[in-house]
Amino acid sequence: MKAKIHITLKPGVLDPQGKAIQSSLGALGFEGVENVRQGKYIELDIGESDAAKAGEQLTRMCDKLLANTVIENYTIDLET
Amino acid sequence: MKAKIHITLKPGVLDPQGKAIQSSLGALGFEGVENVRQGKYIELDIGESDAAKAGEQLTRMCDKLLANTVIENYTIDLET
Repeated sequence: MKAKIHITLKPGVLDPQGKAIQSSLGALGFEGVENVRQGKYIELDIGESDAAKAGEQLTRMCDKLLANTVIENYTIDLET
Repeated sequence: MKAKIHITLKPGVLDPQGKAIQSSLGALGFEGVENVRQGKYIELDIGESDAAKAGEQLTRMCDKLLANTVIENYTIDLET
């Protein structure tokens, strides 16, 4: 079972990487680009074939390792 | 107009970060996790309101700055 995980900074948390991208895009002549936020995207295959159990495992993976839940949100998409 | 950009390593390109995640998950007791690949996820607002023009601008942004097209693929999703 394939899982796609998005990890993004919570709203209000400063995103220096996003700001850097935004100013670089401006310097390259791209106008009107705003609110750039950079997050992480993780794809993985999980052995568990039961969607509910896989979702529960993935939630624990995010809480324990993948995301810093103090400043980051995560979303999990399962592809059956 | 809101855009979501996924930047992933091309298949076959070694992903040390993904491998590190995979072995850390294994060490934490999560079994059966395979093919972990880490990519980047960028959200931004673009001033352009015409979807075709916005898509063309975003493609140029990815080619010029956001992605390293030698080793990375990118996908662009536009939310109207």
